[in-house]
Amino acid sequence: MSQDLTEPGGLTRLFVEAPLGADSALTLDEDQSHYLTHVLRARPGDTVRLFNGKEGEWRARVAAVTKRAVTLSLGAQTLPQTGVPDIWLCLAPVKRTPLDYITQKATELGVSRIQPVMTRRAIVARVNLDRMRANAIEAAEQCGRLSIPEIAEPASFEKLLSAWPGERQLIFCDEAGEAPPAADALRARSRGPWAIITGPEGGFDPAERSRLRELPFVVPVSLGPRIMRADTAALAALAVWQSALGDWNFAP
Amino acid sequence: MSQDLTEPGGLTRLFVEAPLGADSALTLDEDQSHYLTHVLRARPGDTVRLFNGKEGEWRARVAAVTKRAVTLSLGAQTLPQTGVPDIWLCLAPVKRTPLDYITQKATELGVSRIQPVMTRRAIVARVNLDRMRANAIEAAEQCGRLSIPEIAEPASFEKLLSAWPGERQLIFCDEAGEAPPAADALRARSRGPWAIITGPEGGFDPAERSRLRELPFVVPVSLGPRIMRADTAALAALAVWQSALGDWNFAP
Repeated sequence: MSQDLTEPGGLTRLFVEAPLGADSALTLDEDQSHYLTHVLRARPGDTVRLFNGKEGEWRARVAAVTKRAVTLSLGAQTLPQTGVPDIWLCLAPVKRTPLDYITQKATELGVSRIQPVMTRRAIVARVNLDRMRANAIEAAEQCGRLSIPEIAEPASFEKLLSAWPGERQLIFCDEAGEAPPAADALRARSRGPWAIITGPEGGFDPAERSRLRELPFVVPVSLGPRIMRADTAALAALAVWQSALGDWNFAP
Repeated sequence: MSQDLTEPGGLTRLFVEAPLGADSALTLDEDQSHYLTHVLRARPGDTVRLFNGKEGEWRARVAAVTKRAVTLSLGAQTLPQTGVPDIWLCLAPVKRTPLDYITQKATELGVSRIQPVMTRRAIVARVNLDRMRANAIEAAEQCGRLSIPEIAEPASFEKLLSAWPGERQLIFCDEAGEAPPAADALRARSRGPWAIITGPEGGFDPAERSRLRELPFVVPVSLGPRIMRADTAALAALAVWQSALGDWNFAP
Protein backbone atom coordinates (compact mmCIF):
# COMPACT_ATOMS: atom_id res chain seq x y z
CA MET A 1 0.00 0.00 0.00
CA SER A 2 1.32 3.43 -0.90
CA GLN A 3 1.81 5.83 1.94
CA ASP A 4 3.07 9.24 2.96
CA LEU A 5 6.54 8.57 4.33
CA THR A 6 6.91 9.87 7.85
CA GLU A 7 9.43 10.26 10.61
CA PRO A 8 8.74 10.88 14.30
CA GLY A 9 8.36 14.60 13.61
CA GLY A 10 5.88 14.24 10.75
CA LEU A 11 5.95 13.89 6.96
CA THR A 12 9.31 13.20 5.36
CA ARG A 13 10.69 16.34 3.72
CA LEU A 14 13.80 16.47 1.56
CA PHE A 15 15.85 19.48 0.51
CA VAL A 16 16.99 19.27 -3.13
CA GLU A 17 19.02 21.60 -5.34
CA ALA A 18 16.97 20.88 -8.47
CA PRO A 19 14.23 23.18 -9.76
CA LEU A 20 10.74 22.10 -8.71
CA GLY A 21 7.65 22.40 -10.86
CA ALA A 22 4.49 20.61 -11.83
CA ASP A 23 4.81 17.38 -13.81
CA SER A 24 8.59 17.25 -13.57
CA ALA A 25 10.73 14.36 -12.36
CA LEU A 26 14.01 14.17 -10.55
CA THR A 27 16.49 11.59 -9.38
CA LEU A 28 17.74 11.86 -5.81
CA ASP A 29 21.44 11.74 -5.00
CA GLU A 30 23.01 8.67 -3.47
CA ASP A 31 22.61 9.69 0.18
CA GLN A 32 18.97 10.67 -0.12
CA SER A 33 18.21 7.59 -2.22
CA HIS A 34 19.85 5.41 0.39
CA TYR A 35 17.91 7.12 3.15
CA LEU A 36 14.58 6.61 1.41
CA THR A 37 15.14 3.00 0.46
CA HIS A 38 17.10 1.65 3.42
CA VAL A 39 15.94 3.76 6.34
CA LEU A 40 12.36 4.60 5.39
CA ARG A 41 11.82 1.49 3.18
CA ALA A 42 10.21 3.56 0.47
CA ARG A 43 8.39 1.75 -2.33
CA PRO A 44 7.00 3.03 -5.63
CA GLY A 45 3.87 5.07 -5.00
CA ASP A 46 4.99 6.38 -1.59
CA THR A 47 5.08 10.13 -1.25
CA VAL A 48 7.45 12.69 0.26
CA ARG A 49 7.65 16.48 0.28
CA LEU A 50 10.44 18.36 -1.52
CA PHE A 51 11.71 21.94 -1.19
CA ASN A 52 14.65 23.77 -2.71
CA GLY A 53 14.67 27.09 -0.88
CA LYS A 54 13.14 28.94 -3.85
CA GLU A 55 9.98 27.35 -5.14
CA GLY A 56 7.97 26.30 -2.12
CA GLU A 57 7.15 22.76 -1.06
CA TRP A 58 5.93 20.02 -3.41
CA ARG A 59 4.45 16.60 -3.06
CA ALA A 60 6.46 13.97 -4.90
CA ARG A 61 5.74 10.31 -5.56
CA VAL A 62 8.35 7.59 -5.68
CA ALA A 63 8.32 6.57 -9.35
CA ALA A 64 11.19 4.10 -9.44
CA VAL A 65 13.62 2.53 -7.01
CA THR A 66 16.81 1.05 -8.43
CA LYS A 67 19.86 -0.24 -6.64
CA ARG A 68 21.54 3.16 -6.78
CA ALA A 69 18.88 5.82 -7.04
CA VAL A 70 15.32 6.82 -6.35
CA THR A 71 13.40 8.72 -9.00
CA LEU A 72 10.52 10.94 -7.95
CA SER A 73 7.71 12.43 -9.99
CA LEU A 74 6.36 15.74 -8.78
CA GLY A 75 2.73 16.29 -7.92
CA ALA A 76 1.14 19.47 -6.63
CA GLN A 77 2.76 22.34 -4.78
CA THR A 78 1.78 21.97 -1.11
CA LEU A 79 3.14 25.30 0.16
CA PRO A 80 4.24 28.54 -1.48
CA GLN A 81 7.78 29.71 -0.77
CA THR A 82 8.23 31.58 2.50
CA GLY A 83 11.35 32.84 4.22
CA VAL A 84 12.44 33.42 7.77
CA PRO A 85 13.05 36.75 9.54
CA ASP A 86 16.32 38.49 8.67
CA ILE A 87 18.32 37.44 11.73
CA TRP A 88 21.96 36.35 11.55
CA LEU A 89 23.82 34.37 14.16
CA CYS A 90 27.51 35.34 14.36
CA LEU A 91 29.21 32.74 16.51
CA ALA A 92 32.73 31.91 17.55
CA PRO A 93 33.30 28.29 16.57
CA VAL A 94 33.03 25.79 19.41
CA LYS A 95 33.87 22.10 19.44
CA ARG A 96 32.29 19.71 16.99
CA THR A 97 29.32 18.42 18.98
CA PRO A 98 28.12 21.78 20.31
CA LEU A 99 28.62 23.28 16.85
CA ASP A 100 26.49 20.56 15.27
CA TYR A 101 23.91 21.15 17.91
CA ILE A 102 23.82 24.92 17.65
CA THR A 103 23.57 24.76 13.87
CA GLN A 104 20.56 22.46 14.09
CA LYS A 105 18.86 24.44 16.83
CA ALA A 106 19.49 27.83 15.24
CA THR A 107 17.95 26.49 12.03
CA GLU A 108 14.85 25.35 13.91
CA LEU A 109 14.73 28.73 15.63
CA GLY A 110 14.57 30.42 12.23
CA VAL A 111 17.97 32.03 11.68
CA SER A 112 18.67 33.34 8.16
CA ARG A 113 22.49 33.18 8.22
CA ILE A 114 25.11 31.56 10.44
CA GLN A 115 28.38 33.48 10.36
CA PRO A 116 31.44 31.92 12.03
CA VAL A 117 33.56 34.66 13.61
CA MET A 118 37.13 34.15 14.79
CA THR A 119 37.88 35.79 18.14
CA ARG A 120 41.03 36.03 20.25
CA ARG A 121 40.10 33.38 22.78
CA ALA A 122 38.85 30.94 20.15
CA ILE A 123 39.83 27.39 21.04
CA VAL A 124 38.67 26.03 17.70
CA ALA A 125 40.55 27.51 14.74
CA ARG A 126 38.76 25.85 11.84
CA VAL A 127 35.17 25.12 11.02
CA ASN A 128 33.83 22.47 8.70
CA LEU A 129 31.33 24.45 6.64
CA ASP A 130 30.10 21.37 4.76
CA ARG A 131 29.27 19.72 8.06
CA MET A 132 27.47 22.86 9.27
CA ARG A 133 25.50 22.96 6.04
CA ALA A 134 24.55 19.29 6.34
CA ASN A 135 23.31 19.92 9.88
CA ALA A 136 21.32 22.95 8.73
CA ILE A 137 19.71 20.98 5.89
CA GLU A 138 18.71 18.12 8.17
CA ALA A 139 17.16 20.51 10.68
CA ALA A 140 15.35 22.47 7.95
CA GLU A 141 13.90 19.24 6.54
CA GLN A 142 12.56 18.26 9.93
CA CYS A 143 11.22 21.57 11.17
CA GLY A 144 9.23 22.51 8.09
CA ARG A 145 11.41 25.40 6.92
CA LEU A 146 11.32 26.14 3.20
CA SER A 147 14.82 27.62 3.20
CA ILE A 148 18.26 26.64 4.44
CA PRO A 149 20.17 29.22 6.48
CA GLU A 150 23.18 30.57 4.67
CA ILE A 151 26.41 29.23 6.18
CA ALA A 152 28.86 32.09 5.62
CA GLU A 153 32.64 31.86 5.26
CA PRO A 154 34.42 32.51 8.58
CA ALA A 155 35.49 36.11 9.18
CA SER A 156 37.77 37.62 11.80
CA PHE A 157 36.09 39.60 14.58
CA GLU A 158 37.59 42.88 13.40
CA LYS A 159 36.94 42.34 9.72
CA LEU A 160 33.34 41.38 10.38
CA LEU A 161 32.68 44.49 12.46
CA SER A 162 34.60 46.89 10.20
CA ALA A 163 32.49 45.88 7.23
CA TRP A 164 29.27 45.66 9.23
CA PRO A 165 26.13 46.95 7.45
CA GLY A 166 25.19 49.76 9.83
CA GLU A 167 21.43 49.34 9.52
CA ARG A 168 21.68 45.80 10.93
CA GLN A 169 21.36 45.90 14.72
CA LEU A 170 23.63 43.49 16.58
CA ILE A 171 22.68 41.89 19.89
CA PHE A 172 25.66 41.40 22.19
CA CYS A 173 24.95 39.10 25.15
CA ASP A 174 27.04 41.00 27.66
CA GLU A 175 27.84 39.02 30.78
CA ALA A 176 29.54 41.94 32.48
CA GLY A 177 26.21 42.77 34.06
CA GLU A 178 25.73 46.33 32.91
CA ALA A 179 23.36 45.63 30.03
CA PRO A 180 19.58 45.94 30.32
CA PRO A 181 17.46 42.76 30.34
CA ALA A 182 16.97 41.39 26.83
CA ALA A 183 13.21 41.95 26.85
CA ASP A 184 13.65 45.62 27.80
CA ALA A 185 16.47 46.16 25.30
CA LEU A 186 14.45 44.76 22.39
CA ARG A 187 11.09 46.26 23.25
CA ALA A 188 10.08 49.00 20.86
CA ARG A 189 13.05 48.41 18.58
CA SER A 190 12.48 48.26 14.83
CA ARG A 191 11.85 45.00 13.03
CA GLY A 192 14.58 45.62 10.41
CA PRO A 193 17.62 43.37 9.94
CA TRP A 194 19.21 41.99 13.11
CA ALA A 195 22.04 39.75 14.23
CA ILE A 196 23.28 38.12 17.42
CA ILE A 197 26.96 37.67 18.28
CA THR A 198 28.30 35.14 20.80
CA GLY A 199 31.84 34.42 21.92
CA PRO A 200 33.89 31.24 22.35
CA GLU A 201 34.05 29.04 25.50
CA GLY A 202 36.17 31.60 27.33
CA GLY A 203 34.14 34.59 26.20
CA PHE A 204 35.24 37.72 24.36
CA ASP A 205 38.43 39.29 25.63
CA PRO A 206 38.29 42.76 27.25
CA ALA A 207 39.37 44.56 24.05
CA GLU A 208 36.68 42.79 22.04
CA ARG A 209 34.09 43.65 24.65
CA SER A 210 35.06 47.33 24.55
CA ARG A 211 34.99 47.32 20.77
CA LEU A 212 31.49 45.86 20.76
CA ARG A 213 30.21 48.33 23.32
CA GLU A 214 31.41 51.37 21.36
CA LEU A 215 29.76 50.44 18.07
CA PRO A 216 26.53 52.33 17.34
CA PHE A 217 24.68 49.33 15.91
CA VAL A 218 25.40 47.10 18.92
CA VAL A 219 22.57 46.45 21.39
CA PRO A 220 23.99 44.97 24.63
CA VAL A 221 21.56 42.73 26.45
CA SER A 222 21.63 40.72 29.66
CA LEU A 223 20.39 37.14 29.78
CA GLY A 224 20.11 36.98 33.54
CA PRO A 225 22.38 36.15 36.45
CA ARG A 226 23.77 32.81 35.29
CA ILE A 227 26.82 32.48 33.05
CA MET A 228 25.56 30.47 30.12
CA ARG A 229 27.67 28.53 27.68
CA ALA A 230 28.03 30.25 24.34
CA ASP A 231 25.65 27.85 22.61
CA THR A 232 22.98 28.23 25.29
CA ALA A 233 23.25 32.01 25.15
CA ALA A 234 22.94 32.01 21.36
CA LEU A 235 19.79 29.91 21.40
CA ALA A 236 18.25 31.81 24.30
CA ALA A 237 18.89 35.16 22.58
CA LEU A 238 17.43 33.83 19.35
CA ALA A 239 14.28 32.62 21.12
CA VAL A 240 13.81 35.94 22.89
CA TRP A 241 14.40 37.86 19.64
CA GLN A 242 11.93 35.72 17.67
CA SER A 243 9.42 36.21 20.43
CA ALA A 244 9.84 39.99 20.53
CA LEU A 245 10.63 40.99 16.95
CA GLY A 246 10.58 37.90 14.76
CA ASP A 247 7.91 35.65 13.31
CA TRP A 248 6.72 34.26 16.64
CA ASN A 249 5.21 37.61 17.33
CA PHE A 250 2.19 37.30 15.06
CA ALA A 251 -0.99 35.55 15.99
CA PRO A 252 -1.49 32.71 13.46
CA MET B 1 52.65 29.38 42.99
CA SER B 2 49.16 29.06 44.41
CA GLN B 3 46.33 30.01 42.11
CA ASP B 4 42.59 30.18 41.67
CA LEU B 5 41.76 27.08 39.66
CA THR B 6 39.90 27.95 36.50
CA GLU B 7 38.19 26.35 33.53
CA PRO B 8 37.29 28.02 30.22
CA GLY B 9 34.11 29.44 31.77
CA GLY B 10 35.78 30.95 34.84
CA LEU B 11 36.66 29.91 38.39
CA THR B 12 36.33 26.24 39.25
CA ARG B 13 33.19 25.59 41.30
CA LEU B 14 32.28 22.31 42.92
CA PHE B 15 28.95 21.16 44.28
CA VAL B 16 29.27 19.22 47.55
CA GLU B 17 26.74 17.61 49.88
CA ALA B 18 28.60 18.58 53.07
CA PRO B 19 27.67 21.55 55.24
CA LEU B 20 29.75 24.66 54.54
CA GLY B 21 30.91 27.11 57.17
CA ALA B 22 33.85 29.24 58.23
CA ASP B 23 37.00 27.45 59.38
CA SER B 24 35.74 23.99 58.50
CA ALA B 25 37.45 21.37 56.39
CA LEU B 26 36.16 18.69 54.07
CA THR B 27 37.47 15.84 52.00
CA LEU B 28 36.24 15.57 48.42
CA ASP B 29 34.89 12.31 47.04
CA GLU B 30 36.91 10.22 44.65
CA ASP B 31 35.59 11.72 41.42
CA GLN B 32 36.05 15.31 42.50
CA SER B 33 39.46 14.56 43.97
CA HIS B 34 40.50 12.93 40.70
CA TYR B 35 39.20 15.88 38.72
CA LEU B 36 41.12 18.39 40.83
CA THR B 37 44.40 16.51 40.85
CA HIS B 38 44.49 14.93 37.40
CA VAL B 39 42.53 17.32 35.23
CA LEU B 40 43.17 20.67 36.89
CA ARG B 41 46.57 19.68 38.42
CA ALA B 42 45.64 21.24 41.75
CA ARG B 43 48.38 21.68 44.33
CA PRO B 44 48.20 22.64 48.00
CA GLY B 45 47.33 26.31 48.33
CA ASP B 46 45.24 26.48 45.16
CA THR B 47 41.67 27.68 45.62
CA VAL B 48 38.25 26.66 44.35
CA ARG B 49 34.69 27.69 45.12
CA LEU B 50 32.22 25.33 46.81
CA PHE B 51 28.43 25.38 47.09
CA ASN B 52 25.91 22.92 48.51
CA GLY B 53 22.57 24.39 47.48
CA LYS B 54 21.86 25.71 50.97
CA GLU B 55 24.65 27.85 52.37
CA GLY B 56 25.90 30.03 49.54
CA GLU B 57 29.28 29.87 47.86
CA TRP B 58 32.58 29.59 49.74
CA ARG B 59 36.23 29.95 48.88
CA ALA B 60 38.21 26.83 49.77
CA ARG B 61 41.93 26.17 49.72
CA VAL B 62 43.53 22.86 48.84
CA ALA B 63 45.03 21.75 52.16
CA ALA B 64 46.28 18.30 51.25
CA VAL B 65 46.50 16.10 48.19
CA THR B 66 46.93 12.37 48.75
CA LYS B 67 46.77 9.54 46.28
CA ARG B 68 43.04 9.07 46.89
CA ALA B 69 41.58 12.31 48.11
CA VAL B 70 41.84 16.06 48.21
CA THR B 71 41.17 17.85 51.49
CA LEU B 72 40.00 21.44 51.41
CA SER B 73 39.94 24.04 54.14
CA LEU B 74 37.19 26.62 53.90
CA GLY B 75 37.87 30.33 53.76
CA ALA B 76 35.32 33.10 53.46
CA GLN B 77 31.83 32.95 52.04
CA THR B 78 31.95 34.55 48.59
CA LEU B 79 28.21 34.64 47.87
CA PRO B 80 25.08 34.31 50.01
CA GLN B 81 22.62 31.59 49.02
CA THR B 82 20.23 32.52 46.19
CA GLY B 83 17.68 30.43 44.37
CA VAL B 84 16.20 30.42 40.90
CA PRO B 85 12.66 31.32 39.86
CA ASP B 86 10.01 28.69 40.57
CA ILE B 87 9.78 27.19 37.07
CA TRP B 88 9.50 23.45 36.42
CA LEU B 89 10.24 21.69 33.18
CA CYS B 90 7.99 18.66 32.64
CA LEU B 91 9.43 16.74 29.73
CA ALA B 92 8.78 13.46 28.00
CA PRO B 93 12.06 11.55 28.04
CA VAL B 94 14.01 11.63 24.79
CA LYS B 95 17.10 9.68 23.80
CA ARG B 96 20.24 9.82 25.88
CA THR B 97 22.20 12.56 24.14
CA PRO B 98 19.33 15.05 23.80
CA LEU B 99 18.30 14.29 27.39
CA ASP B 100 21.83 15.03 28.63
CA TYR B 101 21.79 18.20 26.62
CA ILE B 102 18.40 19.43 27.72
CA THR B 103 19.22 18.76 31.37
CA GLN B 104 22.39 20.84 31.12
CA LYS B 105 20.75 23.67 29.19
CA ALA B 106 17.65 23.80 31.36
CA THR B 107 19.93 24.07 34.40
CA GLU B 108 21.81 26.98 32.81
CA LEU B 109 18.47 28.56 31.94
CA GLY B 110 17.51 28.49 35.60
CA VAL B 111 14.90 25.76 35.97
CA SER B 112 13.98 24.75 39.53
CA ARG B 113 12.75 21.20 38.83
CA ILE B 114 12.94 18.77 35.94
CA GLN B 115 10.02 16.36 35.94
CA PRO B 116 10.09 13.42 33.50
CA VAL B 117 6.57 12.70 32.26
CA MET B 118 5.57 9.52 30.45
CA THR B 119 3.26 10.12 27.49
CA ARG B 120 1.56 7.76 25.03
CA ARG B 121 3.95 8.33 22.16
CA ALA B 122 7.06 8.11 24.32
CA ILE B 123 9.87 6.27 22.52
CA VAL B 124 12.03 6.14 25.62
CA ALA B 125 10.44 4.23 28.50
CA ARG B 126 13.08 4.67 31.19
CA VAL B 127 15.17 7.56 32.37
CA ASN B 128 18.44 7.43 34.22
CA LEU B 129 17.83 9.89 37.05
CA ASP B 130 21.41 9.63 38.35
CA ARG B 131 22.71 10.60 34.96
CA MET B 132 20.29 13.53 34.76
CA ARG B 133 21.40 14.65 38.20
CA ALA B 134 25.08 14.42 37.25
CA ASN B 135 24.39 16.54 34.18
CA ALA B 136 22.50 19.08 36.27
CA ILE B 137 25.33 19.31 38.80
CA GLU B 138 27.97 19.81 36.12
CA ALA B 139 25.94 22.57 34.50
CA ALA B 140 25.22 24.25 37.85
CA GLU B 141 28.92 24.24 38.72
CA GLN B 142 29.79 25.90 35.43
CA CYS B 143 27.02 28.47 35.18
CA GLY B 144 27.35 29.93 38.67
CA ARG B 145 24.09 28.59 40.11
CA LEU B 146 24.01 28.07 43.86
CA SER B 147 21.39 25.33 43.64
CA ILE B 148 20.85 22.13 41.69
CA PRO B 149 17.48 21.67 40.01
CA GLU B 150 15.45 18.91 41.58
CA ILE B 151 15.28 15.85 39.32
CA ALA B 152 11.87 14.39 40.11
CA GLU B 153 10.75 10.77 39.82
CA PRO B 154 9.01 10.09 36.48
CA ALA B 155 5.22 10.40 36.54
CA SER B 156 2.60 9.39 34.02
CA PHE B 157 0.95 12.19 32.06
CA GLU B 158 -2.44 11.58 33.67
CA LYS B 159 -1.12 11.19 37.19
CA LEU B 160 0.95 14.35 36.92
CA LEU B 161 -2.00 16.41 35.71
CA SER B 162 -4.55 14.92 38.13
CA ALA B 163 -2.39 15.88 41.09
CA TRP B 164 -1.33 19.22 39.62
CA PRO B 165 -1.12 22.10 42.11
CA GLY B 166 -3.73 24.41 40.59
CA GLU B 167 -1.95 27.66 41.39
CA ARG B 168 1.01 26.62 39.20
CA GLN B 169 0.43 27.80 35.63
CA LEU B 170 1.54 25.35 32.94
CA ILE B 171 2.85 26.44 29.54
CA PHE B 172 1.87 24.06 26.76
CA CYS B 173 3.77 24.65 23.51
CA ASP B 174 0.89 23.90 21.19
CA GLU B 175 1.94 23.24 17.62
CA ALA B 176 -1.61 23.01 16.36
CA GLY B 177 -1.42 26.68 15.55
CA GLU B 178 -4.36 28.02 17.52
CA ALA B 179 -2.41 29.31 20.51
CA PRO B 180 -1.38 32.95 20.91
CA PRO B 181 2.30 33.88 20.50
CA ALA B 182 4.29 33.10 23.65
CA ALA B 183 5.13 36.74 24.35
CA ASP B 184 1.44 37.74 24.18
CA ALA B 185 0.32 34.76 26.26
CA LEU B 186 2.79 35.52 29.06
CA ARG B 187 2.51 39.28 29.10
CA ALA B 188 0.71 40.56 32.17
CA ARG B 189 0.53 37.13 33.78
CA SER B 190 1.46 36.75 37.42
CA ARG B 191 4.95 35.86 38.55
CA GLY B 192 3.80 32.96 40.76
CA PRO B 193 4.84 29.34 40.24
CA TRP B 194 5.05 28.14 36.63
CA ALA B 195 5.91 25.07 34.60
CA ILE B 196 6.48 24.11 30.97
CA ILE B 197 5.42 20.79 29.47
CA THR B 198 6.88 19.33 26.27
CA GLY B 199 6.11 16.07 24.48
CA PRO B 200 8.22 13.25 23.04
CA GLU B 201 9.70 13.11 19.52
CA GLY B 202 6.30 12.38 17.96
CA GLY B 203 4.46 14.97 20.07
CA PHE B 204 1.47 14.54 22.35
CA ASP B 205 -1.33 12.39 20.98
CA PRO B 206 -4.73 14.01 20.24
CA ALA B 207 -6.27 12.88 23.54
CA GLU B 208 -3.37 14.32 25.52
CA ARG B 209 -3.63 17.58 23.60
CA SER B 210 -7.35 17.84 24.35
CA ARG B 211 -6.73 17.06 27.99
CA LEU B 212 -4.11 19.82 28.23
CA ARG B 213 -6.35 22.35 26.52
CA GLU B 214 -9.26 21.79 28.88
CA LEU B 215 -7.30 22.29 32.12
CA PRO B 216 -7.77 25.69 33.75
CA PHE B 217 -4.10 26.12 34.72
CA VAL B 218 -2.78 25.41 31.21
CA VAL B 219 -1.55 28.35 29.13
CA PRO B 220 -1.20 27.29 25.49
CA VAL B 221 1.45 29.23 23.59
CA SER B 222 2.78 29.24 20.05
CA LEU B 223 6.50 29.26 19.33
CA GLY B 224 6.18 30.31 15.73
CA PRO B 225 5.65 28.59 12.40
CA ARG B 226 8.41 25.98 12.55
CA ILE B 227 7.96 22.56 14.14
CA MET B 228 10.72 22.41 16.71
CA ARG B 229 12.12 19.30 18.29
CA ALA B 230 10.93 18.77 21.83
CA ASP B 231 14.27 19.79 23.33
CA THR B 232 14.46 22.98 21.26
CA ALA B 233 10.89 23.91 22.19
CA ALA B 234 11.61 23.36 25.89
CA LEU B 235 14.68 25.59 25.86
CA ALA B 236 13.01 28.26 23.76
CA ALA B 237 9.97 28.37 26.04
CA LEU B 238 12.22 28.55 29.09
CA ALA B 239 14.19 31.47 27.61
CA VAL B 240 11.03 33.37 26.71
CA TRP B 241 9.57 32.72 30.17
CA GLN B 242 12.74 33.85 31.98
CA SER B 243 12.76 36.94 29.84
CA ALA B 244 9.11 37.78 30.52
CA LEU B 245 8.46 36.58 34.06
CA GLY B 246 11.69 35.14 35.48
CA ASP B 247 14.93 36.54 36.78
CA TRP B 248 16.14 37.95 33.45
CA ASN B 249 13.52 40.58 33.80
CA PHE B 250 15.24 42.72 36.40
CA ALA B 251 17.87 45.28 35.62
CA PRO B 252 21.06 44.22 37.44
